[in-house]
Formats: sequence, C-alpha cells, structure tokens
Amino acid sequence: DQEEVAFLVAKYDLTAIPVINQNNKMIGIITVDDIIDVIEAENTEDMLRLAGVHEEENINSPLGKSVTRRLPWLAVDLGMTFLSAFIVSLFEDVIAQAVVLASVLPIIANMGGNAGNQSLSVMIRGIALGDLDLDSENGKILLKEGLLGLINGAAIGLFAATVMYFIHGNPYLGLIIFLSLTLNLFIAGLLGFLIPMVLKWMGFDPALGSSIFLTTFLDIVGFFVFLSLARIFINLLL
Amino acid sequence: DQEEVAFLVAKYDLTAIPVINQNNKMIGIITVDDIIDVIEAENTEDMLRLAGVHEEENINSPLGKSVTRRLPWLAVDLGMTFLSAFIVSLFEDVIAQAVVLASVLPIIANMGGNAGNQSLSVMIRGIALGDLDLDSENGKILLKEGLLGLINGAAIGLFAATVMYFIHGNPYLGLIIFLSLTLNLFIAGLLGFLIPMVLKWMGFDPALGSSIFLTTFLDIVGFFVFLSLARIFINLLL
Repeated sequence: DQEEVAFLVAKYDLTAIPVINQNNKMIGIITVDDIIDVIEAENTEDMLRLAGVHEEENINSPLGKSVTRRLPWLAVDLGMTFLSAFIVSLFEDVIAQAVVLASVLPIIANMGGNAGNQSLSVMIRGIALGDLDLDSENGKILLKEGLLGLINGAAIGLFAATVMYFIHGNPYLGLIIFLSLTLNLFIAGLLGFLIPMVLKWMGFDPALGSSIFLTTFLDIVGFFVFLSLARIFINLLL
Repeated sequence: DQEEVAFLVAKYDLTAIPVINQNNKMIGIITVDDIIDVIEAENTEDMLRLAGVHEEENINSPLGKSVTRRLPWLAVDLGMTFLSAFIVSLFEDVIAQAVVLASVLPIIANMGGNAGNQSLSVMIRGIALGDLDLDSENGKILLKEGLLGLINGAAIGLFAATVMYFIHGNPYLGLIIFLSLTLNLFIAGLLGFLIPMVLKWMGFDPALGSSIFLTTFLDIVGFFVFLSLARIFINLLL
C-alpha cells in the first residue's frame, strides 16, 4: 500500500518508482512529491490516532465535525475510567482511615501515564520509521522498555518517597509509594511496548487510541497495587 | 532553516531547490530525498518531544541513554505532580467526610488529560503542516477549541453524572461531577491551544513537553474545582 511505497522511497532515497503491469510494461510512475504527501498524511494519522482523534480532523475542521470526531473516544475513555473509580471505591474503608492516601493517587496516576506515553511514542515512531524488526527484536525491546521502566520508576519512586517522608514523617508511607511507583513505571514500560503490538496483531493501526488505553489501564493497576499495599500495612500508616 | 525548506517543498510539490550565494550564483542544490529525511526527522521530534522524550531517542537506543533522556522529564513531571497532591491534601477534611469523592478524582484527572491531549495533538500537527495562520486565526481557533471542550465536557459530564447518580443515589454528587467535568474539559480545550502557543512565543519548540505540562495543570485545576464544590455543598452530599 501507499505507506510501504513511501517507506521504500524514504529508506533508499529514491526519487521515483515505476509502476508496471503483469507484462512488465510500465503503466505509470510515482514521483517523490506524491510520496511526501503520503508521509505527511501517515505522520498526521499516527499522531492524531495516538491521542484518540480521527485522522481527518485538523485545526480548521468545523466545530460540529470536531465534536463528532473526538467525543466517541472520550466516551470510550469514560467507560474505562469508571473502572478505575470502581477500584478506588473498593478501598474507601482504607482511605477513610488514612485520608493522606487520596492525595497520593494523583502522583501514581500521573507518573504512570506520562512514563507510559514516553515508551508508547518511541514505539509508534519506531514502527513508522521501520526501525523495528518485529520478528527478531520483540523480546529484546520488551526487556529494554521493562528495565527502563524499572530504573526510572525506582529513581522517581525514591524521590517521591523521600519528599512524602519529610512531609508526613511516616517511613512506611514512603515505602509503599516507592514500591508502587517502581512497579507502575515498570508496567508502563511493558505496556508502552505491548499495546501497539497487540493492536497490530489484531489488525488495527498500532497508534489507534493507544494512549487512552494505556493511561486508563495504568490508573487501574497503579491504584490497585498502591491501595492494596496500604490495606496490608494500614496499621503502620496510622 | 531546514524545517522551512522542507515545508516549502511539501507545500508546492517542488522536486529540488537551488541554493545561491550573494551574487546570485548557484552554489548547490537541495534535492527532494534530503527533504524527506528532514520531514521524517521533524515529525519524529514533534511526537517525541510532545510526550517528554529527547528527540534523538529511538527504539534501539541503549538502555543507559534512554534512562538519561527520559528521566529528566519524569522528574519535572513529579515536581508538578506534588502540586496536585498538595491541592488534594488541602481537602482531606472534606474527603474524610465523604470518601466517595476520592473515587471521582481519577475520572476528573483522566478525562481532562485525554481531552487536552486531543486538542494538543491537533494543534501541534496544525503548526507542523502550516495549516494555521498564527496571526489572524488565533482568536477563532481558541474560541473553537474552548467551545469544543465545553460541548464534549457537558456531554461526558452528563453521562458520568447519570452513572454516578444511579450508583450512589445522590443527585448533588452528580451535579458537581457534571459541573467539574464541563469546566475541566473547557479548560482542557483552551490549554491544548494555549500551551503550544506560549511555548512558541517564548522561543521553544511548541511540542516541548507540552503534554506533561497540560496533564498536570489540568489535574491541579480539576481537583481544585471539584473539591471546592464538594466543600461548599458538603451537607448535600452526606
């Protein structure tokens, strides 16, 4: 398809590609200025779909069209967000005992989402540029993104835990924040790789709404882990 | 610079641009295959910087380099996230009285962040493709993104409020969720436009970490509005 042609032209610095029929007769030519348009269109599609925006949306789209193009993804997002609200509601008894836990939830959610979006952007770009040999390098890249999440998670977790210890004076609160952020950013790295891969395997565009799936899933896992640890160690937190 | 040359070639379907010196003598030529490389590099830079990733990062970067390229942005994010945790902590007395409020926080944060990222992606792409006449159309696009946020916010807010009403049986909780989501998605639309514009005016790349600034700022505003409304109407929520 047009994406593959554009990719070949970009990779081998071609300036034109002949189009032949079954008898090897040249029936046309694809020139490089057509290719530039395809590349720009594919890049636009990737960036917009990643964020849950219809690929035909642009800055000058009329208001009504923009509403009908963006609202469906927000509705999908809302449906999934009810799940993370439900997870938090399962721990209302724990939060009622130590209300400080509520103020840690935004840290867990925001850091997981942003770390995941870093991995996701690098992956989507790697796929678009053909930098990724999907058959032989899967395992290597999954391992790298996982390790990266673990290292960044531990660094961010240590910093967050130290600050919260100085504010609240409870080392156990710091410890569960450290463990939760480390695990959440580890999972963020894995999912930043796995979500586009799974979308691709299912025959969808790897960018399609992947940031929305990722951030919501990380909220769910992050809240569950953090509040479960809080429940187990609640006596140490009071 | 190279971005402007690439933009001209893409827009006017040129296949080569002569380079002349002061005496109008041709000293070289920029061909279209160079331009394709520039376009791909600029698109990569936009997508990565938007998510807080160094533009030279790619899927095959060694682990150590990826850590040092992504961790600084996560640290900036953490610093700002402490602010949203601080906002929540100001309302611990309100949350302690109605713990259900804690489970609504992820809905406020996630919907604001994702709606904001939709506006942001369309803006960044509009700037990259030159679809946006920044002098004459500023007001029109700000108005459109604001209205879009208001309409999508009201639709999402109404749906979320209805679901929460059926779960918790309290119409006032539904009402403050509706108001908060409408306002938060309105601000998300405005900021999705304003953050890249402000970065541009300050001489930075409009994509530079803009998603991280946006999501964190929306958390702060969203929590403040929702929990302030909850404090005012706390007697109706119990």
